[in-house]
Amino acid sequence: MLEVVLADSELELVPPDLWRHPAVRKDARRRGKRPGELLLDSSLHHAALRSLPDGERRGRPDIVHVALLVANESILNREGRLHMHLHTRHNQSMEVDPAMRVIKNYDRFKGLMEQLFERGAVPPSGLPLLRMQEKSLSEVVNARSSDVVVLLAERGERVPLETVLRESTTCIVGGFPHGDFLSEVKGLADRTVCLYPETLPAWTVLMEVVVAYEKMFIPGR
Amino acid sequence: MLEVVLADSELELVPPDLWRHPAVRKDARRRGKRPGELLLDSSLHHAALRSLPDGERRGRPDIVHVALLVANESILNREGRLHMHLHTRHNQSMEVDPAMRVIKNYDRFKGLMEQLFERGAVPPSGLPLLRMQEKSLSEVVNARSSDVVVLLAERGERVPLETVLRESTTCIVGGFPHGDFLSEVKGLADRTVCLYPETLPAWTVLMEVVVAYEKMFIPGR
Repeated sequence: MLEVVLADSELELVPPDLWRHPAVRKDARRRGKRPGELLLDSSLHHAALRSLPDGERRGRPDIVHVALLVANESILNREGRLHMHLHTRHNQSMEVDPAMRVIKNYDRFKGLMEQLFERGAVPPSGLPLLRMQEKSLSEVVNARSSDVVVLLAERGERVPLETVLRESTTCIVGGFPHGDFLSEVKGLADRTVCLYPETLPAWTVLMEVVVAYEKMFIPGR
Repeated sequence: MLEVVLADSELELVPPDLWRHPAVRKDARRRGKRPGELLLDSSLHHAALRSLPDGERRGRPDIVHVALLVANESILNREGRLHMHLHTRHNQSMEVDPAMRVIKNYDRFKGLMEQLFERGAVPPSGLPLLRMQEKSLSEVVNARSSDVVVLLAERGERVPLETVLRESTTCIVGGFPHGDFLSEVKGLADRTVCLYPETLPAWTVLMEVVVAYEKMFIPGR
């Protein structure tokens, strides 16, 4: 099994300090929601984010969306060999049901995430496809029992993934657009690997890991 | 060089027959555009699409968006070894500049595509990153001079990509959600390959092709 943790993802509701900002109020009116029910989205709340600590990297549900589309529609996931976990900057963690068909439309995906923040699980009745829990990155990673934990990071070794992946692996991939992990990652991973000398978006790292794993452990690929 | 053609993509403006449909008019009001300036989007115009031929597969700019995010942010593209081409159901074709940073926000991406349909190129002044031309799939494919043309399709051979990819390859990937190619593809490809017994979205096929090619032809991967 390949376990992937999208770590320190920039997924959160609009924080109270920004509720009265014009960009947020406009979005709330348009969506018919209260400001505190909205997902923070840098492409809409850019002006408001300037006043927030780490504002230049926060509010990126689009990264989570594309990463989930890449993960859950992959051959590896269809073969039942991939487990995705989301972890956010505020240490909220969600296990993604491999059976979840990720909503393709971005605005509807945001609506689903807003429901998740409001109710703690989606769908709210029946078996949840996503359930939110308070968990730090180390709690998420240490709850897996993989043979090897691999951190994908720019300061890692430049070695092919094939040299570090095992059949039972947990990979930690940053869910933020740039900068460093907020969570303490030192000591969490057995190996730290750098795939490329430039910053890569989360979904590019993810597709490299997923396809490399398929080629190693799925017969006939 | 790996040339990829996203073929028969479901990317088009709202056709005149749907301009007066309530779902389209509502979207036009909200966006401050005329109905004929809007990109057809099944997640918004679902009810209107029912009356259109092939309505169950049309209006999927989201597929093009995710495919471009996967392609242009890939390591292969950063290495200058990938050329993406878009081709639509109405035989409009666009070469994607490898230097194009694909807009991450879906609504803004749609705005860019609408501008492309209106003006024929974006940005409209200076060197265009995307330019639209009337070209059939066979014209796009035959204008490449690759050593091998590979069609990815469900009715193809179940062989590993490594057995068919050459350093100079053109791959044809369907840009539609399900069903068959609209364009005549018979005779266009040297090999037809099926990656998986289930229908895969375009971006999953694309990531398999891109990473397989990287592993074969980019040293150290």
